[in-house]
Amino acid sequence: MRAPDELRALIEDYLLTLELSSDLGDLRDSMRYSLAGGGKRIRPVLCLAAAEAIGCEPERALPAAAALELAHSFSLVHDDLPALDDDAERRGRPSTHIQWGEAVAILAGDALLGEAVRLALSYPSPAVARELIASTQGMIGGQYLDVTHSGDLAELHRLKTGRLFAAAIGLALEAAELPALEQTPWRAFAEELGLLFQLVDDLLDRDGYVLVHGVEETRRLADEAAARAKGKLAGIDADTSVLEEIVASLVSRTS
Amino acid sequence: MRAPDELRALIEDYLLTLELSSDLGDLRDSMRYSLAGGGKRIRPVLCLAAAEAIGCEPERALPAAAALELAHSFSLVHDDLPALDDDAERRGRPSTHIQWGEAVAILAGDALLGEAVRLALSYPSPAVARELIASTQGMIGGQYLDVTHSGDLAELHRLKTGRLFAAAIGLALEAAELPALEQTPWRAFAEELGLLFQLVDDLLDRDGYVLVHGVEETRRLADEAAARAKGKLAGIDADTSVLEEIVASLVSRTS
Repeated sequence: MRAPDELRALIEDYLLTLELSSDLGDLRDSMRYSLAGGGKRIRPVLCLAAAEAIGCEPERALPAAAALELAHSFSLVHDDLPALDDDAERRGRPSTHIQWGEAVAILAGDALLGEAVRLALSYPSPAVARELIASTQGMIGGQYLDVTHSGDLAELHRLKTGRLFAAAIGLALEAAELPALEQTPWRAFAEELGLLFQLVDDLLDRDGYVLVHGVEETRRLADEAAARAKGKLAGIDADTSVLEEIVASLVSRTS
Repeated sequence: MRAPDELRALIEDYLLTLELSSDLGDLRDSMRYSLAGGGKRIRPVLCLAAAEAIGCEPERALPAAAALELAHSFSLVHDDLPALDDDAERRGRPSTHIQWGEAVAILAGDALLGEAVRLALSYPSPAVARELIASTQGMIGGQYLDVTHSGDLAELHRLKTGRLFAAAIGLALEAAELPALEQTPWRAFAEELGLLFQLVDDLLDRDGYVLVHGVEETRRLADEAAARAKGKLAGIDADTSVLEEIVASLVSRTS
């Protein structure tokens, strides 16, 4: 089983050498800029680790893992736009619309989603792309709740953050062609991941759940989500040691 | 063979009752607004007519035809945004960002593309979705040339308009599961359609090709493209009478 850092190196290298559709011309420069922001690549690393635990070579899951990272990148580029969160910085660099202009940022986001779908469609079965697009639509629904200040916080985060996190596991299942009946325990594990990530995020940023429930209660909710995630993993008949390590690092992360 | 008006009624009805992903919540209202703009539905009608000429029930091609119309609608919603063309009106109604606000319009466009992909993925083979996304990426590449005023006019239109037009035929071929070897003459016909549409568009709007080549030369180019399209159709061993009728109406259209 490969360690998270090995899997991270694998996806970084894949993203760095990824060929984007030539029809996009120089728009690809802004897409590569958005993709190279030095994120933690948590979603694709989770996807590769899940694939290996299922018994599939991580290399085979690379297009699916990269598709997820591109969809995540698309969501950040559009989320940072002036009409939405109006963020001028992303991970210490000018956000895409500051660096390339608003028109190019809108098109770069569109094209990142398109390339994500193209990567997911490189598999023989349409199941990988179906998983990707269902989670992407959920994420967009979450963004909508966010910008319109409608819906409750739990539903907003379940959609906006949780769906792409759960898709990290769902995409691995489909890329590995695991039969539907054997997917159930994996999908139960996936459901807990997004919530855990969001709770820890809010603890670090002192917003979201912390504003509603306070620090102590949010910490308790995070610990419970982590315990449930570990419980689900323990019930899966596979070597899930690397996934356990990733869950532990999600709980204790400081950035 | 069903007449273009019958096929138009078929797609209108399908779009009117189309179920969008429930995760999108109330964002669906703005998507339906964008979709219900009363366009001519030329692309989906072409798709359905091509499918029937190939020997496939138009009903079977409906998800593919609708996917194309949603992708077209996505492109219009984003194209109308203040950062791009800044159009306050679309077909005599307030454009999506005027009616629903800029943030919602960005998300509605994203979600229209997502739903287009979802519809294309309703087929057993991933080929329909591959065709859709390849043409969408071409269209986005054309939008990029447009907003950055780079590339030449022919390349810009080949991508921005031509690719989704050609996809009307390509999607029909894949939805009908026509073997790759038999697709060649159809794809040659598809190539001529987008150029023809654009040339007539520019004659009506007195821009694009007309500004570069003048009215007379643009009319000549349009007539030549129409003649080539008819020639390609004549070489196909199928009842292409409805497609011939659509080509003739593209040449003589006044709006």
